[in-house]
Amino acid sequence: MPQLRLALNQIDSTVGDLAGNVEAIVRWTRHSAEQGAHLVAFPEMALTGYPVEDLALRSSFVDASRAALRTLAARLNDEGYGELPVVVGYLDRTEEAKPKYGQPAGAPRDAAAVLHRGEAVLTYSKHHLPNYGVFDEFRYFVPGETLPVVRVHGVDVALAICEDLWQDGGRVPATRTAGAGLLLSINASPYERNKDDQRLELVRKRAQEAGCTTAYLAMIGGQDDIVFDGDSLVVDRHGEVIARAPQFSEGCVVLDLELPAAAPEPPSGIVDDGLRVEHVTLSGEPLAAYRPELTGGYAERLDDDEEVYSALVVGLRAYAAKNGFSSVLIGLSGGIDSALTAAIACDALGAQNVYGVAMPSRYSSDHSISDAEDLARRTGLNFRTVPIAPMFDAYMDSLGLTGLAEENLQSRLRGTMLMALSNQEGHIVLAPGNKSELAVGYSTLYGDSVGAYGPIKDVYKSVIFRLAEWRNRAALDRGQTPPIPENSISKPPSAELRPGQVDTDSLPDYPVLDAILEMYVDGDQGADAIVAAGYDRELVVKTLRMVDTAEYKRRQYPPGTKISAKGFGKDRRLPITNHWREKSV
Amino acid sequence: MPQLRLALNQIDSTVGDLAGNVEAIVRWTRHSAEQGAHLVAFPEMALTGYPVEDLALRSSFVDASRAALRTLAARLNDEGYGELPVVVGYLDRTEEAKPKYGQPAGAPRDAAAVLHRGEAVLTYSKHHLPNYGVFDEFRYFVPGETLPVVRVHGVDVALAICEDLWQDGGRVPATRTAGAGLLLSINASPYERNKDDQRLELVRKRAQEAGCTTAYLAMIGGQDDIVFDGDSLVVDRHGEVIARAPQFSEGCVVLDLELPAAAPEPPSGIVDDGLRVEHVTLSGEPLAAYRPELTGGYAERLDDDEEVYSALVVGLRAYAAKNGFSSVLIGLSGGIDSALTAAIACDALGAQNVYGVAMPSRYSSDHSISDAEDLARRTGLNFRTVPIAPMFDAYMDSLGLTGLAEENLQSRLRGTMLMALSNQEGHIVLAPGNKSELAVGYSTLYGDSVGAYGPIKDVYKSVIFRLAEWRNRAALDRGQTPPIPENSISKPPSAELRPGQVDTDSLPDYPVLDAILEMYVDGDQGADAIVAAGYDRELVVKTLRMVDTAEYKRRQYPPGTKISAKGFGKDRRLPITNHWREKSV
Repeated sequence: MPQLRLALNQIDSTVGDLAGNVEAIVRWTRHSAEQGAHLVAFPEMALTGYPVEDLALRSSFVDASRAALRTLAARLNDEGYGELPVVVGYLDRTEEAKPKYGQPAGAPRDAAAVLHRGEAVLTYSKHHLPNYGVFDEFRYFVPGETLPVVRVHGVDVALAICEDLWQDGGRVPATRTAGAGLLLSINASPYERNKDDQRLELVRKRAQEAGCTTAYLAMIGGQDDIVFDGDSLVVDRHGEVIARAPQFSEGCVVLDLELPAAAPEPPSGIVDDGLRVEHVTLSGEPLAAYRPELTGGYAERLDDDEEVYSALVVGLRAYAAKNGFSSVLIGLSGGIDSALTAAIACDALGAQNVYGVAMPSRYSSDHSISDAEDLARRTGLNFRTVPIAPMFDAYMDSLGLTGLAEENLQSRLRGTMLMALSNQEGHIVLAPGNKSELAVGYSTLYGDSVGAYGPIKDVYKSVIFRLAEWRNRAALDRGQTPPIPENSISKPPSAELRPGQVDTDSLPDYPVLDAILEMYVDGDQGADAIVAAGYDRELVVKTLRMVDTAEYKRRQYPPGTKISAKGFGKDRRLPITNHWREKSV
Repeated sequence: MPQLRLALNQIDSTVGDLAGNVEAIVRWTRHSAEQGAHLVAFPEMALTGYPVEDLALRSSFVDASRAALRTLAARLNDEGYGELPVVVGYLDRTEEAKPKYGQPAGAPRDAAAVLHRGEAVLTYSKHHLPNYGVFDEFRYFVPGETLPVVRVHGVDVALAICEDLWQDGGRVPATRTAGAGLLLSINASPYERNKDDQRLELVRKRAQEAGCTTAYLAMIGGQDDIVFDGDSLVVDRHGEVIARAPQFSEGCVVLDLELPAAAPEPPSGIVDDGLRVEHVTLSGEPLAAYRPELTGGYAERLDDDEEVYSALVVGLRAYAAKNGFSSVLIGLSGGIDSALTAAIACDALGAQNVYGVAMPSRYSSDHSISDAEDLARRTGLNFRTVPIAPMFDAYMDSLGLTGLAEENLQSRLRGTMLMALSNQEGHIVLAPGNKSELAVGYSTLYGDSVGAYGPIKDVYKSVIFRLAEWRNRAALDRGQTPPIPENSISKPPSAELRPGQVDTDSLPDYPVLDAILEMYVDGDQGADAIVAAGYDRELVVKTLRMVDTAEYKRRQYPPGTKISAKGFGKDRRLPITNHWREKSV
């Protein structure tokens, strides 16, 4: 059987940074060539970054993407890689498309090209477009209607993009019909908890449907509030995993494959779901037989807590780097949320780039300062203390506030303090809110919600505890000092905005709260279903009301951070629900 | 020819307030019946409010909408209106739809029902779904595939929903094929500048295509940051306007129509675009001839400035009412933006419900206070002054800020002050930012951007001046005191955050800035196209860079207000563009 050395470049891209992305692709192609690859692949929209959102509708950006593709092809050829086929995702448009119903303006395409000898010898677009959750691709793209097949050293390689594998029909069965020897799918699939297992089963199933070895190349890194977890896969036609790339790290998986020889007559015509085969032969003859050397490897899997923690680190690191910041500022309360946020920041950026500030008020406990100091000592982050009493007194003297207004004032004085230091010193502010408190609105707008990025905004409080304990255990396992003070983990959570306040004054116990939230926010289940799962009706109704009101307030006063429905990733559209309540009480 | 008295109820609905919307529909049906109507219509999704966004994907909400429809039908019957056919929009689902590619979860429908004798005798869904600009309906709905026709007093009435008229094909030509005597379309069409003219031409064209009298019933009011302008239309089959409802006011248009008699054999089968005719006869016989009395009227058109001003007033009034607030709080700087915002608020809610606070710093000019006082005197709003010097000094003593950090601090101290008063007294804060300054990022996050609602966030600065002058002229025409101090209009705009500062230190003159912004933000044009329109390349590049950076910062730190691309309405998705610049410099 013909042989092929495949290089899957699991890399990060930056939305809009066409020049930087070209450089990265050239660099990794060089690396692939040095490894002796015969076919090189890059993720979905690696050239433009993903997701480009409404930039897809801006024709000057589409033009720039097309120009960057030409530049890239020429660069690769000039640097001596012209003979090496490179598959790369980019943004294109359908030529001569007339405006019509349901077609996005300018007819953009989530496209990919096979580059060879300085040119794009074959281009195609994603056939199945996702339009749910974080995706709105019916808004942005026209679907591709071909089955692209490129013949490389006597092997027919069918090509696909991401959602093409997630939906039934289309390119997977078409790959079988066309008799391809390899199915190569390039992806930018956002991370969710447990999605890796789902993805593994999916690719195994699709490989069997396609009837050939299937390579699934994933993106890694982060873009805004989406994280890409890597975990590229190669699976044989029986569904057995041949190679699996690491989670959460950039790299190139290179492996030797033995693949069926292509039929002398290239596939053609219309195959499954009306897809038209578009076939290009780059090299019809198999390579001279060689001894397979590279297996691609099987990276060890992270356990659940490490996986989530890694996603948080990678997401923050990518966010800071892509937005041109090298240092972050965090208000440290001595509590577990700010402590975990600081630990993540230290792991992402180095403790020398993490600035913590304690901002005690008259209601702050002694341990709020001592625990924050302990955190700073353990991690080595930069620490200072600035009391808010003078600012608080100035407002109280002018306005004479009481109750909630007085509580929120303290939180907002801290937000203003953080932003002032951010402006003065150039750090970005991290918001330490967790998903549980944000979901029920237990935070102060323009106060503790201030921040450019909320590293733990998609993590429920019960998971926060688990992650803190995991991170400390991991430190001990490595012979390092656990970063998070034991007292921050063990003491009862409190906002410390009035004497003796604790979270459970206002909220159910976190394990119960989180279970209800998971059903309501993540699971889209109604009050009846949650009660049927064994929760007290009054508590369920009260909790759902808090979520509805908080969702409504987030829309009313958009805060610095938003929670997402599905564990990780961008917001879905939050409806105004203040008038809509689960009525079945 | 048979006669029919048609009642078009141009009303406001509240998203999620099913019980309240039922009451409104019953009340307006009563009014219609008292006017002797034979057929009564309500806007698109009048029962649930529009747009429901991701609530459409929550099955308990779909269930509640269906239950509310049954309640409504029973209520109308119980109150003696069972014989009167009522067409009303609501949220439904397609029964027995299995999950499939491209179909939203739960298969929701943007539906309408004909209610008669306590039941929904005919239901249908929007056929053409908009998926651009503020719309994402491919995400939410499955399209309807019928041509619904209801026979009322011997007239066949074909039914449609909103986008069905905006796209070619589908129900408009099908109405002609089916030989209907009246096409009734119910709508929730968001306001944009000049859209009324476009809509008029559209309905005239579609009436001629449909070959019959066409009634276009619009929604009025506001939902979140969308405004509905009313302006319902009835057009005869030659495209001549028969009746036109007022802009921006709730009401019922009742008119007598003479319409072609339906053929004895009802239309059936498949007509244009594969639509299946679904025909129900409620009353096959024409009414006994009567003397037509009601013409529906032709409401006078507002001129451009009054139209925009009215949209701002209606939007704010609806926002406050739907969110349960009766009073608003505005920081008054003596400048034109806060003065116009205050004037709009006084018109929307009454001066007694408008609270203004001047918050001078050491850099504030004398006229900043005197102009604010003058505004308060002219409008009668509630006014107070709270200097920020003590708070400012407290921060400066602790942090020793300089430059931009010192400038932003002043703005944030005011934001915190407004939120403290809001919490203490229960007003919502209005953000006075205009579209020009928000587009280029000339505002302070968590400072002047603080607010639940930004009444003028979608209005360019040059239009702000025009609106202020229009409002003052209108007052003089009515023999009232012009609300906006002449000095607020005539003095050079300044943020007053450092000595002698004026906007033109940082920004181009507003007429030039606004022209460039309109091409870039609203028109999606690139640098080359804008330069070709006659603007200096360096200035264009600088301006576009400011917009890109501001868009990026809005994503980085979501502020209290966002601008929309198209004059009014919700945000489009803003891409991160800090790395993408118009490179053609």
